[in-house]
This record gives sequence, C-alpha cells and structure tokens, in this order.
Amino acid sequence: MLGVGKDKVIMKKTIITNGQFIIWNEQHPIVNGCMVIEDNRITYIGTEAPLPLEQYDERIDGTNKLFMPGLVNTHCHAAMSLLRGYGDDLALQVWLQEKMWPMEGKFTAHDVRWGTELSILEMIKGGTTTFVDMYDHMNEVAQAVERSGMRAVLTRGVIGLCPPEVQDAKLKEAVQFARDWNGQANGRITTMMSPHAPYTCPPDYIEKIVQAAHDLNLPIHTHMSETAREVQDNVDQYGARPVEHLEKLGVFARPTLVAHAVHLTDEEISLLQKYDVRVSHNPGSNLKLASGVARVPELLKRGVKVSLGTDGAASNNNLDMFEEIRLAALIHKAVTGDPVAVPAEEAIRMGTLEGARSIWLDDVGALEAGMKADFIAIDIDQAHFFPKTNYVSHVVYSASAKDVTDVWVDGKRLVKNGECLTIDEEKVLAEAQRCFERLTSA
Amino acid sequence: MLGVGKDKVIMKKTIITNGQFIIWNEQHPIVNGCMVIEDNRITYIGTEAPLPLEQYDERIDGTNKLFMPGLVNTHCHAAMSLLRGYGDDLALQVWLQEKMWPMEGKFTAHDVRWGTELSILEMIKGGTTTFVDMYDHMNEVAQAVERSGMRAVLTRGVIGLCPPEVQDAKLKEAVQFARDWNGQANGRITTMMSPHAPYTCPPDYIEKIVQAAHDLNLPIHTHMSETAREVQDNVDQYGARPVEHLEKLGVFARPTLVAHAVHLTDEEISLLQKYDVRVSHNPGSNLKLASGVARVPELLKRGVKVSLGTDGAASNNNLDMFEEIRLAALIHKAVTGDPVAVPAEEAIRMGTLEGARSIWLDDVGALEAGMKADFIAIDIDQAHFFPKTNYVSHVVYSASAKDVTDVWVDGKRLVKNGECLTIDEEKVLAEAQRCFERLTSA
Repeated sequence: MLGVGKDKVIMKKTIITNGQFIIWNEQHPIVNGCMVIEDNRITYIGTEAPLPLEQYDERIDGTNKLFMPGLVNTHCHAAMSLLRGYGDDLALQVWLQEKMWPMEGKFTAHDVRWGTELSILEMIKGGTTTFVDMYDHMNEVAQAVERSGMRAVLTRGVIGLCPPEVQDAKLKEAVQFARDWNGQANGRITTMMSPHAPYTCPPDYIEKIVQAAHDLNLPIHTHMSETAREVQDNVDQYGARPVEHLEKLGVFARPTLVAHAVHLTDEEISLLQKYDVRVSHNPGSNLKLASGVARVPELLKRGVKVSLGTDGAASNNNLDMFEEIRLAALIHKAVTGDPVAVPAEEAIRMGTLEGARSIWLDDVGALEAGMKADFIAIDIDQAHFFPKTNYVSHVVYSASAKDVTDVWVDGKRLVKNGECLTIDEEKVLAEAQRCFERLTSA
Repeated sequence: MLGVGKDKVIMKKTIITNGQFIIWNEQHPIVNGCMVIEDNRITYIGTEAPLPLEQYDERIDGTNKLFMPGLVNTHCHAAMSLLRGYGDDLALQVWLQEKMWPMEGKFTAHDVRWGTELSILEMIKGGTTTFVDMYDHMNEVAQAVERSGMRAVLTRGVIGLCPPEVQDAKLKEAVQFARDWNGQANGRITTMMSPHAPYTCPPDYIEKIVQAAHDLNLPIHTHMSETAREVQDNVDQYGARPVEHLEKLGVFARPTLVAHAVHLTDEEISLLQKYDVRVSHNPGSNLKLASGVARVPELLKRGVKVSLGTDGAASNNNLDMFEEIRLAALIHKAVTGDPVAVPAEEAIRMGTLEGARSIWLDDVGALEAGMKADFIAIDIDQAHFFPKTNYVSHVVYSASAKDVTDVWVDGKRLVKNGECLTIDEEKVLAEAQRCFERLTSA
C-alpha cells in the first residue's frame, strides 16, 4: 500500500505491458498483452491496458519476457541444502541412517537458519514462490520465510523413535509452532501437522498427531511409500501396507498431503482418491535414491491431485522446480511406453496450479484476476526458447531455474533482473559454508 | 599464435590462476591452482604456476570458477532446433512421419544454416565444445562450425527410401562431403559416413555406404534399436534384430558409433563389445519419445564405450548436456533399483572424456598436459554449488548450461563472461525465427 487517504487505503497499481502471459486455457494458453497488479492481487489480464498507462504507479515493460505463475514446491526440507553432495549414490535407508541422520543430529537452530536461507535463495531466484517445508527448529524456518517474502506451508516433522516423554515434547513443540505461525507474515505462512513417516512414528503417536491436527483444524503432511522396502517393512510390522495403515490410524480423516507415494497398488490409489489425499511427486529425489518411479499417470487418471516437490537438496541435488516439471513430463513417457503420458500442459500445472491446490492455497497458481500476485518472468530472448512456437512446451522441456529474471510474491517484487532484493546473497553463501565446515569438522 | 620469430613460431601462453580444475583422478578429482595453455594445448596443470606470472601473455583469474573439460555431444541433428516445440508428446514413428519429415522435406540450405547456428549458439554457451552432427546440406553445417570455433564430427546422414539413382546421388554427396571436410578448420572438423538407420536404408545400400567408409578410411555413425517397434520390424523384414543385421552387412568391420541402442539383448551387448562399437546414449530424447530406457549399466559393465547425446532439439527439447549427464546418472538408478548404477563420476566422464574417445578424438576430454585446450568455466559462487563439498557431484546433480561463463575450444576463447565472441546472437535468433515462420506459413 502506498498510503492511507482520508477514507480508504490507497493501493499501489502496477501494470506490466508487452508481455506474454501463460494462462490456464488449453486452446489459447498465451495472452499477449498486459497484467495489472493491485496491492497483492492480480486484478486484470488481457490484450489491452484497462486504463491509460500514466494512471499506474509502476509500469514494467515485459518485452522478451514470458510471465507465468510462480512455481510451487510441495515437499522440501530446506535446511538439508547444507548436506548437498554429502553422501551421494546411496540407497534411502543407508543414506538416511549412515549419512543424513548423524549429521542432522548435530544441526543447531543456527544451522537450520542458514541451510534454510541457502535453499530459499536458490528457490526464489529459480522461480519458486511457495514451498512446503517439513523440518526441525521451525521457528528459524518461519522467520527466514517471513524475511524473504516467500510464501510457505510449514510443519514441524516429528520422528517418534524416542521415549514417550520426548515424543510428547516434540508434539507439543509442533503444536505450538503450528498455532503460532498459521496465517502469519500477512498470510504468507500457513501450517500443517506432520508425523514424519509411518516407519518413523509408532501408531499411537500418529494418532496423537492426528488428534492435534483435528484440534488445530490443520492438514497433515507425511512421507509415505517412498521405497519398496518401507512398504514391506510396514506389512511385516503392522500387517498392512502404508496407505491402509494410515487410513486405519485416521490420518486421512484430515486433509492430507503425502510425499513420494512411489509404491502403490490400484486399491491404494482408490483409497487416496476416495479421501482426496494429495500426492507430492518428487521425481528427482526418487530417481537419485533409486526409490522407483511413482505411478503418476494412474494417479492422474483416477483424479488424485498430484503436485511436484524437490525434496531436500541432499537427495536431488538442486531445488530447480523446472527440472521436476521436466522429469515429471519425461520419465513417465519412457516407463509406460506412452508418449502422451503426462503431457507438457499437465506437467506445468502440476508445478504451479495443482501445487497450490494441493496445499489448500486456492487463490495462488494462476495468472487470473482475483488471484494472489505470485508470478515470475522468464527471459525468452535466448536460443533455447527459439523458435517462438509453443511456450508451454518450451518451459516444460527447455527452461531452467537460471532463465528466471524476476519474481513477485504477494504482489511484492523479490527478484529483479536476477538479483534477490530481500536476501544478502553473499552473507548467506558464506554462513552456509561456515555451518557445513563446523558440522564436518566436529 | 602471436607471430613468427626468426626461427620458430611463437606460441601464445595463457595461465589461469586461483581456479579449481576437475581432473580424471578418482581419489583427488580437484586440483586447486593453475592451468597453462600454449597455442591449442594444455601444457600444465598443478597447484603452483610453473613460471613467474609476468612471463605469460594472458593471465586469467579463476577465482570462484570451476574448470572442466568441454562437454561432448555425440549425437545431434543441429538444424532440427528449428522444429523445437513443433510436435511434442508423440511416438517416434508418428512424430517422424507426420511432423518431422514433412517439415524437414521443406528445409533448404538456408534453413539448415540458421537452424545449425541456433543450435551451435545454444551448445557453445552451455559448455558443449564438440558435437556430432548427422544431417543434410552438410556444407552449411561445416561452415557454421568453422565460423563458430567449435569442434565437430560431421556426417551426411543418408536415407535410402528412394529410387537407386537418388540413392547414388546421396551417397556421392556424402562421400564428397566427408572427403572435403575431414581435417578442416585446423583439424577441428572430422567426418564419418552414415546410413541413417537400418529401417531407412535397404541392406544393399548400407553395404555401399560401408564400402565408401572403407575407401575413405572413416568411421560409421547410425541410429540403431531406438524403439521396440523398430527392432520388431527389422526382425519381420530381415529375419534379424538390428545388431545382427548390421553385423552381417559389415558395418561393424568399420569403427562405429551407434545412437540410442535402447533395445538390446545380452547377446547384442556382447556383439557391440566384441566389435568395440560405441554407443551414444540419448536419455532425454529416449524419455520424451517414450522409446524406453537403454541398458546403460549393463553396457558399462561389459566395457562398451558409452557417451551422451542430446539428439536434435525437436525431441529433447534443449541441447543442455548437463541435463543429459544428470539424466544418465539418475534414471538408471530408479529403473534398476540400484542407487550406485551410473555414479556421478561415471556420468561426468560419459559427457566429456568418453564422448571424445567414442568419436576417435584421443586428445580431447581431459584437463591434462598434452590434451587439446577444449574446456569450460562454471560460476560456482551460487547457492546450488554450496556447500563447497564435492564438485563432481555438484556438476552432475546440480549444474545446468546457464552456469557456464567461459568456453575455450582448441585454445581459443569462444565465450567470455557468458557472451559468445564468435556468433552474432541477435542475428541468429532473428534468422532462425524467420526460417521457422516461412516453413510453417508455406
């Protein structure tokens, strides 16, 4: 807002002219023209400016730029970027137990702060405007999100492999965090409750977390069916595959987002559909950890909401959401032998609109009057965007994080000509490096 | 060369200081220090400068840069970038017969020139220093390569689905091209002979091409076993799968590079190994066209030389070789369930050293005294390269074409701080666009 007049709040009006805008219209996905942003909302998109240009507070020339909704990363552990490249090419359980958990056990709030800032810097410059984060020391994460200007859905992921009093303390902390931060940062932060996974939380602990989610009226986020081994272990230990197990524990009575969901039977897909459980597909991480290839075409066919996540940078190893969009469009074609499995239009929506819908953000993820102004600009005056044919195809099959020049979240410009306006980049890189060195020297 | 003295040619001496250099030493893959280039060769790499710095004609500060061998793209049809985004999400045969071939039939030499320039621009700025190109109007391609300063192995790909006199004319043209250009552009261009594929060339025509390759003493490059349908068609038509078929036709009596090789039996892998046939693995294209996933781990285990190619931009859709390296490292892990299938070290070599070896360039692909000075610099002062842990991992799992800041080929700097010094970028983009518009309006 620019200021307050006698009777009303005066909104800042910005117009982008001469741009190309991706909208969710299958026949005509590109608007050549203008977009107007007032305060934190898009109020107009069309070929002609609705008012004379001098009536706008800010005029931005969109020539040679492609505008699209900001990318939505629905599964991340931002602080794990401190472990990027630390322990590659290992199976999930070995990687977790021998590499990640011992190092993460040493993480202080200070480490989480700088690991998260490192990830936010990478995500924001690469066009991600919203991310889901499940981790520990979440106050640090929330503060970093608040400072950065990004949008996030945050949750303290709890692992229940510990004595009951430690379980209780963790749950109390998770509840406190979820209550304190839900709706904060001008509504940019919302929260969820998270049992880390069926294999890291005893059933009675999961039930307690579900009850807390009911009490707070919040959704649940959890890892599920990431590896074949995890599924088999679940059957051996609890006599049921993870989907049935979580259903019995009442998890799906809450709105739920599950990450991975690689190993599913037809019956399990039906259950997910029945409960409107949303799936965060993490193709990069699933490939790297050799977890397998999720049954995304079947999930989509059955109407399950599928979005995309990077997972943490330790198993990806970057946070480039364009890459996840591309992998989602590419791998299912080869694995199913069907060249129209997950077409480009579907993949780009999974990385934007479906991402927002999957995390209950109903006014994010589209360039459309009334939607929150979370959007990005891509420099299309480059060889890999020529010829100027199908820009949805070019974004899905050819773009990368580094093509992003400008980013707006909630109507505020966070990246301008490739420079992040809200983060001291040099300091973040140096501090993250210092954390890593301390962690590995100890 | 700077000039010619009384008795000898005076070489230009360049030193890069304060750099980090990737070398092919598994235990110690990074040298922190200096590299010296004299004329077109690397003459030194080590921690200390061999001479006082003032004795070098050019001194380059390598701070915050990672230097590595230039990327080698072993299968491309550069001019097809004109068809980027034109006909996505289709099966190979439909895509070829209904989209690509009708449009390519209209390509003039002018189109091939600008399509190739567009691809060269994208490749060179993205760190590719050598590429294999199989296409038509190859004089245009060779001239574009010569002007750009890149290294290339070029071949007129011939399709024999035409009357004998047309076949003969094509072969004659291919022979003429191969003879004219082999060793040209200071040796930066070498040539091969190419039957396009077993499914596009009758057996007797392939035999004639093989004979020509014998006469010219040149290697052979061909598409092979890209789709299951092609393999089955080959069995139906000729009573043999493609590998046995090509063996019978004498192809493998010549040094041979085959592209794709997705559908192979164990026996076929043995045959490829026996004849030292090199495989250009094109993961991006194979995924996009739903061709399948090549048996790369098995090929590597059996000692077959495997390199990486983008294929044309119409089936990829970019020419980012970092992406091919990453896909090669990622997809085989998930498909085989083995998290160490194609480790990072193997993938980066496939995109560089093994690429050069696969196309008979024995002094390209390594930062090592005596090797040709084909190398690139990457800006590692960015979030996705932190923490500074394992740079081979960071390149494979986190880098992209846009991270490349500088490129040298044959000792000559072609890209400086992201600007291509040998190509008029604006003109190339405009001309390529014009060609596309003419082709689609006709």
